[in-house]
Amino acid sequence: MNWTKKDLLGITELTKEEILFVLDTAESFKEISKRDIKKVPTLRGKTVITLFYEPSTRTRTSFEIAAKRLSADTINISASTSSYVKGETLKDTAKNLEAMNPDVTIIRHSMPGAPHMLARIVDSSVVNGGDGAHEHPTQALLDLFTMREKKGTIDGLKIVIVGDIIHSRVARSNIFALRHFNTEIICCGPPTMLPPHLEELGVRVEYNLKKAIRNADVIMMLRIQKERGGVNYIPSIKEYSTFFGLRKEHIAGAGKDVIIMHPGPMNRGVEIMDDVADGPSSVILEQVENGVAVRMAILYLLLGRET
Amino acid sequence: MNWTKKDLLGITELTKEEILFVLDTAESFKEISKRDIKKVPTLRGKTVITLFYEPSTRTRTSFEIAAKRLSADTINISASTSSYVKGETLKDTAKNLEAMNPDVTIIRHSMPGAPHMLARIVDSSVVNGGDGAHEHPTQALLDLFTMREKKGTIDGLKIVIVGDIIHSRVARSNIFALRHFNTEIICCGPPTMLPPHLEELGVRVEYNLKKAIRNADVIMMLRIQKERGGVNYIPSIKEYSTFFGLRKEHIAGAGKDVIIMHPGPMNRGVEIMDDVADGPSSVILEQVENGVAVRMAILYLLLGRET
Amino acid sequence: MNWTKKDLLGITELTKEEILFVLDTAESFKEISKRDIKKVPTLRGKTVITLFYEPSTRTRTSFEIAAKRLSADTINISASTSSYVKGETLKDTAKNLEAMNPDVTIIRHSMPGAPHMLARIVDSSVVNGGDGAHEHPTQALLDLFTMREKKGTIDGLKIVIVGDIIHSRVARSNIFALRHFNTEIICCGPPTMLPPHLEELGVRVEYNLKKAIRNADVIMMLRIQKERGGVNYIPSIKEYSTFFGLRKEHIAGAGKDVIIMHPGPMNRGVEIMDDVADGPSSVILEQVENGVAVRMAILYLLLGRET
Repeated sequence: MNWTKKDLLGITELTKEEILFVLDTAESFKEISKRDIKKVPTLRGKTVITLFYEPSTRTRTSFEIAAKRLSADTINISASTSSYVKGETLKDTAKNLEAMNPDVTIIRHSMPGAPHMLARIVDSSVVNGGDGAHEHPTQALLDLFTMREKKGTIDGLKIVIVGDIIHSRVARSNIFALRHFNTEIICCGPPTMLPPHLEELGVRVEYNLKKAIRNADVIMMLRIQKERGGVNYIPSIKEYSTFFGLRKEHIAGAGKDVIIMHPGPMNRGVEIMDDVADGPSSVILEQVENGVAVRMAILYLLLGRET
Repeated sequence: MNWTKKDLLGITELTKEEILFVLDTAESFKEISKRDIKKVPTLRGKTVITLFYEPSTRTRTSFEIAAKRLSADTINISASTSSYVKGETLKDTAKNLEAMNPDVTIIRHSMPGAPHMLARIVDSSVVNGGDGAHEHPTQALLDLFTMREKKGTIDGLKIVIVGDIIHSRVARSNIFALRHFNTEIICCGPPTMLPPHLEELGVRVEYNLKKAIRNADVIMMLRIQKERGGVNYIPSIKEYSTFFGLRKEHIAGAGKDVIIMHPGPMNRGVEIMDDVADGPSSVILEQVENGVAVRMAILYLLLGRET
Repeated sequence: MNWTKKDLLGITELTKEEILFVLDTAESFKEISKRDIKKVPTLRGKTVITLFYEPSTRTRTSFEIAAKRLSADTINISASTSSYVKGETLKDTAKNLEAMNPDVTIIRHSMPGAPHMLARIVDSSVVNGGDGAHEHPTQALLDLFTMREKKGTIDGLKIVIVGDIIHSRVARSNIFALRHFNTEIICCGPPTMLPPHLEELGVRVEYNLKKAIRNADVIMMLRIQKERGGVNYIPSIKEYSTFFGLRKEHIAGAGKDVIIMHPGPMNRGVEIMDDVADGPSSVILEQVENGVAVRMAILYLLLGRET
């Protein structure tokens, strides 16, 4: 297929065919990061801006490494050092950056929809690097990439997402992506952390962790989004951990060859215990590695799109 | 002509011939940012340091993009993460950076004259990226570039600069540059924001905005420099905006084909209204685009100078 | 010899032969920074991460310049903008970065041993860029490089280290390195700033500055480590400066052709006076210049090691 989209704003915009096309493209890029010389000239002379209004190590670094391995130039802008402090609107910041002829801007912002606004007002490409509790599409794509790599296929999988669902852009983007496939999706967590009407998305709700993960192929653990007030939705961290923290003894009750995922950063001892995080079922670090490949694919597809 | 200067510290140091030479050089660089592969090998193996003691998105980014499109390596240093916190003097920071053999350092500092001190103590090139309320030479050069591009020539233009003149390095550098040409320069703002003796610079003062902009070819709006105490010079933002905020109805009273400029970041609704900022007379984003070309020219000329 | 070590964690790990091999390698790299085109393709396609949990201008910049002049890609991560604020452990940050397939991580951390922990859990190379009051190996290597360059040889030198020895990773790494050579090492400072049992390291203690520097070939001045509580170890800065600040009149009492060193940043007027810091015996800026060459050598050796 030919890629025609200018932006990657959310999973909701993508067809199943497009999702699979990203995953296939990422496969061919994964090998580059294993080489002795981890660099190809594909995007030489392209300018990639990361515009992060929320702190991040892994996502910003992952995009920056992806861009550099494709030989693009990268410009990092973080809110704390930007004109943001002089009261400039996001729209003006965006128009100004656009005037410098970048090829793509990756934006992370606490306001849902910020990347979409950006995409409407600039001609260059925009990638949503996480917008509030809304979407985080590259995370979902790297999660599906990892599921497919580990399980051979996404169809037929039983996937359990556990934790602070209501504040999680990762959960949302994953649900939107997984719905395209023949999967069973279960959300598990305290009732206060599960948004209403989840069933309308084709998701089953289960409040008991042991029941939820029975025969699961994939367990995706989420951290409590403290920066979005997550701790106010539970009586205590300790109680949360008792009921929804994943322990080694849980694994036996899940499906054979279950894989454990986490978008990071982990709060060890809260939602996930060390013996699970570092155990044989964990694919958490493979998610990170696949993230670079998926982001290389996204940059490649957006900048090489048919126009 | 041959460029011989090591540094760009202020417009006051440049002859009219040198100003025009920068503009002509910038013209040839502007096209590079429009290419599919926005990169030329001109400054490969050169090291460009940005040393910013004041926050900035646009200027730092503009220089960084300019350097990268010329294939130079860039090193960003901002005050908040620097040894500045350990009490090192600017002089020692400069000598230390110099010892690492950079080719050019772009410095922004709240103290007027900081770049000049730097230039005296290092052998490599120094560019003033803004020093307090003193000078911002690359801004003036990109402003003149934009005027010439839009109007065909700078000679004969009537240029009105409106706002917090007394705190504006942009106004100062523009006045110093425009004086070389056969222009009519008018400064307009509340009396507290107009420095004394402006007339000695060949500038006319006018307190009434409507009168000031009559037959103007260029209107350059400035923001109130809150970080330099600008708000203490006016009764209220609202009153300031009433008398000195540029509105659509003003445009008709200005010259035919007037262009509206602003160095950014804009405070919309204060010194400039949306319908002007985004209207057909606005060249504000073209200023930003031209900034990259002018900064490429400056880096090219300084590093390729005759010695 | 062939370099076989994966990491540079401390001077204590290096043999005398390895130290000399780094210095010899650095010599061949020093010339690159003097060229018109300061760049060689040696590390093209390699990814270098700087992970700094303490503020730094010179060390981070020195490593970044070293990496770029070898054509490596660099990724800067500083604690203030990292996931550190989300409570992630250093171990998880390290594992996550590792998953993105970097070739080397340079870490600075306030906790002694942080780089060693990192090195145990990642397969890629780790360089200690300073860990608490423990070690700062590249600083010691550049210091020895500078001594050898200025004095022809390290053997036979009388080296005096003055100041806040107890909090100084620079002093420790230098002592560990100099012990391999036939040198006389004297530590001088107020008793509270000299750790016990220094004699067991082969170091002589002397509380009187004038006596200490008699016939010295090298005087290495240290700043008071305010960030590690150094000021609480002395009655006052003024008294400290009176007794342990290096003045021009001291130089005559030192050895002929004595060289004055300082790892920076200097607190002028405290541990060192202007006429010494900027005088003919000072090699302080040459230390900085040599730092780039030594770090190029380290990156080159670690990434090209025999496996």
